[in-house]
Amino acid sequence: MNDAISRLLSPRSVAVIGASADPKKTSGRPVAYLRKHGYAGRILPVNPKVERIGDLPCYPDIASLPEVPDVAVVLLGAERAHVAVRELSARGCAAAIVLASGYTETGAEGARRQQQLVEAAGAMRILGPNTIGLVNLTDGIVLSPSGALEMDAFPVGGIGVVSQSGGILGALLSRAAARGIGLSKLIATSNEVDLELADFVDHLADDPATRVIALYVETVRHPAKFRAACLKAARAGKPVVAFKIGRSEAGAQAAVSHTGAMAGADRMYDALFRQVGVVRAQSFSDLLDIPAALATGRRLHGRRVAILTSTGGAGTLVSDDLGVAGFETPAPDVATADALRALQSGSEAVLDRNPIDVTLAGLRPDLLRGAIQALLASPTYDALVIIVGSSSLAMPELLAGAIQDCLPASDKPVLAYVSPHAPEIGALLTQRGVPAFAAAESCTAALAGMLRVAQFQAPVREDAAAPRAVALDPLPCGALDEAEAKRLFARFGVPCAAERVVATAEEAQAAAAALGGRVVLKILSAQITHKSDVGGVAVGLTPETIGARLGQMACEVEARAGVQPRRFLVQEMVGGGTELILGMHRDALGTAILLGMGGVTAELFQDTTLRLLPPSGGLSHDEALAMAQALRTWPLLDGFRGRPRADVQALVTAVVAFSQMVAQLGDRLLEAEINPVFVLPEGQGVRAADGVVVLL
Amino acid sequence: MNDAISRLLSPRSVAVIGASADPKKTSGRPVAYLRKHGYAGRILPVNPKVERIGDLPCYPDIASLPEVPDVAVVLLGAERAHVAVRELSARGCAAAIVLASGYTETGAEGARRQQQLVEAAGAMRILGPNTIGLVNLTDGIVLSPSGALEMDAFPVGGIGVVSQSGGILGALLSRAAARGIGLSKLIATSNEVDLELADFVDHLADDPATRVIALYVETVRHPAKFRAACLKAARAGKPVVAFKIGRSEAGAQAAVSHTGAMAGADRMYDALFRQVGVVRAQSFSDLLDIPAALATGRRLHGRRVAILTSTGGAGTLVSDDLGVAGFETPAPDVATADALRALQSGSEAVLDRNPIDVTLAGLRPDLLRGAIQALLASPTYDALVIIVGSSSLAMPELLAGAIQDCLPASDKPVLAYVSPHAPEIGALLTQRGVPAFAAAESCTAALAGMLRVAQFQAPVREDAAAPRAVALDPLPCGALDEAEAKRLFARFGVPCAAERVVATAEEAQAAAAALGGRVVLKILSAQITHKSDVGGVAVGLTPETIGARLGQMACEVEARAGVQPRRFLVQEMVGGGTELILGMHRDALGTAILLGMGGVTAELFQDTTLRLLPPSGGLSHDEALAMAQALRTWPLLDGFRGRPRADVQALVTAVVAFSQMVAQLGDRLLEAEINPVFVLPEGQGVRAADGVVVLL
Repeated sequence: MNDAISRLLSPRSVAVIGASADPKKTSGRPVAYLRKHGYAGRILPVNPKVERIGDLPCYPDIASLPEVPDVAVVLLGAERAHVAVRELSARGCAAAIVLASGYTETGAEGARRQQQLVEAAGAMRILGPNTIGLVNLTDGIVLSPSGALEMDAFPVGGIGVVSQSGGILGALLSRAAARGIGLSKLIATSNEVDLELADFVDHLADDPATRVIALYVETVRHPAKFRAACLKAARAGKPVVAFKIGRSEAGAQAAVSHTGAMAGADRMYDALFRQVGVVRAQSFSDLLDIPAALATGRRLHGRRVAILTSTGGAGTLVSDDLGVAGFETPAPDVATADALRALQSGSEAVLDRNPIDVTLAGLRPDLLRGAIQALLASPTYDALVIIVGSSSLAMPELLAGAIQDCLPASDKPVLAYVSPHAPEIGALLTQRGVPAFAAAESCTAALAGMLRVAQFQAPVREDAAAPRAVALDPLPCGALDEAEAKRLFARFGVPCAAERVVATAEEAQAAAAALGGRVVLKILSAQITHKSDVGGVAVGLTPETIGARLGQMACEVEARAGVQPRRFLVQEMVGGGTELILGMHRDALGTAILLGMGGVTAELFQDTTLRLLPPSGGLSHDEALAMAQALRTWPLLDGFRGRPRADVQALVTAVVAFSQMVAQLGDRLLEAEINPVFVLPEGQGVRAADGVVVLL
Repeated sequence: MNDAISRLLSPRSVAVIGASADPKKTSGRPVAYLRKHGYAGRILPVNPKVERIGDLPCYPDIASLPEVPDVAVVLLGAERAHVAVRELSARGCAAAIVLASGYTETGAEGARRQQQLVEAAGAMRILGPNTIGLVNLTDGIVLSPSGALEMDAFPVGGIGVVSQSGGILGALLSRAAARGIGLSKLIATSNEVDLELADFVDHLADDPATRVIALYVETVRHPAKFRAACLKAARAGKPVVAFKIGRSEAGAQAAVSHTGAMAGADRMYDALFRQVGVVRAQSFSDLLDIPAALATGRRLHGRRVAILTSTGGAGTLVSDDLGVAGFETPAPDVATADALRALQSGSEAVLDRNPIDVTLAGLRPDLLRGAIQALLASPTYDALVIIVGSSSLAMPELLAGAIQDCLPASDKPVLAYVSPHAPEIGALLTQRGVPAFAAAESCTAALAGMLRVAQFQAPVREDAAAPRAVALDPLPCGALDEAEAKRLFARFGVPCAAERVVATAEEAQAAAAALGGRVVLKILSAQITHKSDVGGVAVGLTPETIGARLGQMACEVEARAGVQPRRFLVQEMVGGGTELILGMHRDALGTAILLGMGGVTAELFQDTTLRLLPPSGGLSHDEALAMAQALRTWPLLDGFRGRPRADVQALVTAVVAFSQMVAQLGDRLLEAEINPVFVLPEGQGVRAADGVVVLL
């Protein structure tokens, strides 16, 4: 554990720089809230214009403080905050929370001020600037002026929240409280001039009070650190759930390859999250709903859900939404149906369906208890959703108690869907260990999140194919031509289509004869990458036809591109395979390998998948195989509709080889793409049929 | 207006059959709620065991009632309800609401009881059985025992709700009330033994108090009636919003064609809703959110949204979600930025972006008013979303008042997103004409719903191509063979590939020579529809090769299918086109035409679109064109990536012709599918290359 972060979250003393005596003012709130929420440590307000705040002495300046505070909350504006920060640092304060705005978020002048702040801080840690501070509910310590702290009490629980937006922190705090969702710590990192998201993920992974970590992400500043922190949390059995904004950003545009347009910043985040076991919340409300379910510590082992209801309609709503997301709602097995029937003698319960409608049980806690026990014990179900209708509203305690009694007998998830508007009963259930939701989509998201967590295995160390340094001749700078690019791919073990470089019609004829069968003729130029756009590709040629075609191509290319092609490529014509695209993409998050279905139809559907390279080298075979299987068009490789099965093993080997090339060349490699790579039927391998490489 | 429905919704007198004097019992609630919510008409309780309920006299039986009630609420169980219904009908009561369950929903015995109920009702209208009743908030008349009516008051407004589930009615009533969303009428139709969804849509279209109609749909019983009612509502300017459960049902499986598997019950509903202008709510919460926005009567004319915020984070949440759904959030134009800047002299507002952050305006109503006015007046924006942060919570009335003041100056939609948990401020805003949402997805759904409504033009009469009766020879029953099927398509004007039916190798050679070029050879059999599965298709043949191939095919088919093929089809080989599938699908909702992209890749993506045939005939040209344009692979027909533009006009003509065939053959046609139909480059037409027809 980082000692400064521990002191920041649990300070024994807090200086409040610029504290006002008026609790209505933003600058008056931190002291007021510290006291309101029962802070047990020492509060040291600093303000030259005030003598006392309540019964607390107020100090005229930092130098006069009677002790070195663990933490300082700096309420001064951006034009003065750095002065206080310098003095606090000089006195040996562990960390300062800087609330002022007016830094990088406002432009160049703000960026200068932010740099000034960094320099002033020295060894002292900074949270912010432009932050709303932090709230440690575990220990009752609130270091924030957030209006959400006007509330008197908050449910304390196992969810640690880190947000890169200050405003969002208050929204999460108040929304969680209204829902009965217990939080441990909330930290707003905002401008992250020093302490950032990953620092707190790392810290919360060690925090005994935190069972689940929820992140509101705008940007990940240091991907390697973030990656390590998330894997540490996963290994500690603490799931991380992240909501990331920026989903609608346009994808980055690359100059030469198609990969850039297909990759895009948001898909890189998707890959990062998936690879380190972070569950991505698809909506802001999921950012509380999924952690609320995970915080119960219960485990979901499959997709079969029992829905217990005493009201029509609502159960169907939940079942329908679960069905759309791929969950199953099977009818009770015979033994379970018998057990349920035995509970309600005299009634005509119809127990051949799910939702399981036990109208009587909904009204009598003992029967409800029996029904829940039967469903949790049933081998047919992996989870239980209980529908709360209007009839339960009159006896919330009895209902909550009955459900709660049943929880210890099983570790299967038990969730509640509250059909009428009844926030109190939802909060009560959630606090009793039964996360309650007012939307069917929330139940589904919570269960889907639990399933992802159960399925993720954090690697002991990041899994990579053994790095294999390939000895290379010195490589030129800039774009390689197609033949050079393929030679590079081949050096790393990617099989390429057979080909010859030629300059004349006679050489082309000889090459076609040597290659045999029909061939492809292409111009060879490092400058012209979109060859077909200028008439520089012809297919299906023979030794008889290729000579004339070469002359014709030379003329057409010169007319259309303004360059006379000097060299051509004669390439075997690869047929009978499935076309894919294999590329790389790099942005601030790291370097990713992209695999996609080729061909014009698949391109319209953007059927691609991404994996970030691990720090240590290329992708593993398992990861490469998972990429192919993640394509929606995977069945085309897998014998769909009587097609021959493709040589997936060779594809996987090629993806790994390509990824090792990307890893070894590192930052020298600006772009690399094989498009298309043909995957031939099983046993016949793959062939790279065209390629782009741009080197620095 | 249907008089019985008017009397049902606004009765001057209500008999309550089986009323209990105990308001805590379900059977005691209807009388208690009628009085609690101020019913001004006459209440006539009937119960032989009770003399008075409060100050109301209670009658021993229906015969003793001092007047004929407009409506009776029947609280008896299923075993006795029909007796009361018969007596009420005999006395001339207009309508009865039957609450008992135990009818068709429970099985065969219940179905018998339901039939008994129908017979007992005679000319009297029935709502239910198994219903929770209805609530007319416009006139303060509640005919229901729903526990939701325990609330003292409900916001009254312009949204009429019809639900096929009773439990859902209470959920909608209580959820709307908590949100400040005003409703006009709520009706639960449930088992719909008589009055159904469409009856109430039709009625609410005429109801002056109703501006928007919200439907909770389990099944549409009489599609033609539903269709007519929805179009009537659209013409009356009253949008209909529907949430339909059953999205996860498996698609219907058809025996011969692929169309059935691709169509599916839920997609048929999608088509129906789209064609009659019903906005489909994607989630249950949308069923209140979209109507709440539509009930303002404001109009959305485009996709450009201004987001006004005084808090970070939340504005970005909304903007991000809008972006994902295809809305735009452009920065303010120069004039608007100037107007905004003029409002906040002395501050360094950054106005080159959207969300538009006017921190000061968020705290001062006069500045907020100025900012809203500037944004509503700006030609850059079609709508405005105002972010409500914690800072506004202290002055909800001022905030709501400031926004409300600005509404009359424009008819652009103005919505609010409330970031912290603050249901009261949300309800206040909604009641003041500014629909408020706690989820970004709800803002987006509301705006998307408004856009769909603005874009839908209800046809004056249902638009169909002039029905053209094609004179036909008598058609056989059962499956047609491929040649017969294509002749049928051709009779209606669908161009088919040139072909000859042959029986011998010699005839095949002659046919190939006559057709010219390369040809396809297929077995011709009404029994074997999946010809290639048994080796019954060969492509790329010439007059030289076809003879031998025919002999070989005959052997292979006999070996694999156990039938010796007697006849073959020699067909021109169509090349250079785009493959589509054109089919029909019929279920309880009607008959639909399906158009989809052909080929194995598109099949994996299920890229298809459906349109239901109008009552009067085939599809219109516009609708057929819209179908092609609705395909995700439409660009393949439209000159994508330098491909030749396809002959879309010919495709549209073929779709219309096919739809006219389907319309004319009516119920005789069990299945019909052209798969594939090739769309050739512009000017070259289309060719049906294979087909299935099954006749009754």
